[in-house]
Amino acid sequence: MNFMEKIAFAARKNNSLVCVGLDPDLAKLPECVKNCADPIFEFNKQIIDATKDLVCAYKPQAAYYAGQDCDESLKKSIAYIKKNAPDVPVILDVKRGDIGSTAEYYAKEAFERYNADAVTVNPYMGLDAVKPFLDYADKGVIILCRTSNPHSGDLQNLVADGLPLYKHVAKLVRDNWNYNRNAALVVGATYPEELKELREMCPELPFLVPGVGAQGGDVEKVVKFGCDKTWGGIIVNSSRGIIYASKGDDFAGKSGAAARDLRDMINSFR
Amino acid sequence: MNFMEKIAFAARKNNSLVCVGLDPDLAKLPECVKNCADPIFEFNKQIIDATKDLVCAYKPQAAYYAGQDCDESLKKSIAYIKKNAPDVPVILDVKRGDIGSTAEYYAKEAFERYNADAVTVNPYMGLDAVKPFLDYADKGVIILCRTSNPHSGDLQNLVADGLPLYKHVAKLVRDNWNYNRNAALVVGATYPEELKELREMCPELPFLVPGVGAQGGDVEKVVKFGCDKTWGGIIVNSSRGIIYASKGDDFAGKSGAAARDLRDMINSFR
Repeated sequence: MNFMEKIAFAARKNNSLVCVGLDPDLAKLPECVKNCADPIFEFNKQIIDATKDLVCAYKPQAAYYAGQDCDESLKKSIAYIKKNAPDVPVILDVKRGDIGSTAEYYAKEAFERYNADAVTVNPYMGLDAVKPFLDYADKGVIILCRTSNPHSGDLQNLVADGLPLYKHVAKLVRDNWNYNRNAALVVGATYPEELKELREMCPELPFLVPGVGAQGGDVEKVVKFGCDKTWGGIIVNSSRGIIYASKGDDFAGKSGAAARDLRDMINSFR
Repeated sequence: MNFMEKIAFAARKNNSLVCVGLDPDLAKLPECVKNCADPIFEFNKQIIDATKDLVCAYKPQAAYYAGQDCDESLKKSIAYIKKNAPDVPVILDVKRGDIGSTAEYYAKEAFERYNADAVTVNPYMGLDAVKPFLDYADKGVIILCRTSNPHSGDLQNLVADGLPLYKHVAKLVRDNWNYNRNAALVVGATYPEELKELREMCPELPFLVPGVGAQGGDVEKVVKFGCDKTWGGIIVNSSRGIIYASKGDDFAGKSGAAARDLRDMINSFR
């Protein structure tokens, strides 16, 4: 199965549009995993075990592993998902953007070294920066469009030819970059009106939607404005709200409960 | 010394505006290093030994190390520069761009795990994505503005309020993001007219200029349009033209000769 088939299958099988952001911060891990040989892997493993029937995807954020010098924990975590939750695709959140030969190495990093099913990519450098990823036709390529952060408008809201920059990105992806039918967009939950307009512009592109939970995005609006008529069409990411639902010995069980709550809340609005 | 002082010092001491891009591709390395325990490190080491008095900076491209699963070779190469060419700053070319807490981990990766003096960053997500880097006041933060690749205009040339996107980036950096006086811009050599206009707009920002050599940028125009009246103000990167000057046993000597030639050509136009 390619990424698009895999996410559709997982969303239907688990009746869920929830994606768990695996962003483990050593300083924030529960005491009970801190003394393990590989605390980050142990933490992820227990979260995965507790949530694998409740989600449509996992999204490890590469910076947490790179910044804490634990690439091996990332590799092991993805391998663990492939073995124990083989139906659930892995989106490696790297937001890379570089040209030709360099982008090819980043694609190799994500898809071969780490064996991810999909990757996030930055569009600022244009097609050259995205093509080496798109050319892996079986893999998903999720392109930053309207991001959820407070200053995302610094560039994304600049209006050219009557359209804000982020809509130019959406158009490029819809009309030119989706030649392998493996592209998707990152659209933050914190700007629901813009999510609505983007869904109208791009009825066939899946959206990865960060920003519910800690960042304050409104789940009801995200679902009402973002869902399409296929498997759902939105991948709603929550990181802190799920992985840090408890910092006690019961963290895994609580993460499962938080994933279930978010799944049910999303489904109640569909 | 902070990055800005360090690059000025190295440029003056070595009378050079050349930056060597350390982008080693295992498949392209000379036979004579292929059987070493760590071929990439051995290759870099010999290139560094041969060029360290001829350059103002080194720029390892992180993708080559990440994509070939040899982060350790990157770490050792930077450590080798710090020990054996301590005056020459290291720009880690990562082009990261992500929000708050995640960007903090990327900054940690570049500045603490790898001990780089400067880093390249993508502006698409706005100030949140750049601030965690800028807040390391001693480090350099080189922001993508007008990149050298063929499709760079897909977004960068979109005109908003009478200015192309890349000039909005230049203005943001000049007026708002340079609060620690540690920002610089990436401006490709392949668009010399735009380099000229950017220099007029931003007389005080250093430019990292990729795209001479293999990509076809015109050195004379880069120097005439880009140089400022301080230490020079441009960091002219060449990767393939220097590191693959020869693929024989004489590769290191030839890389030194190529760096010297580029240095002298640049200086002849100053």
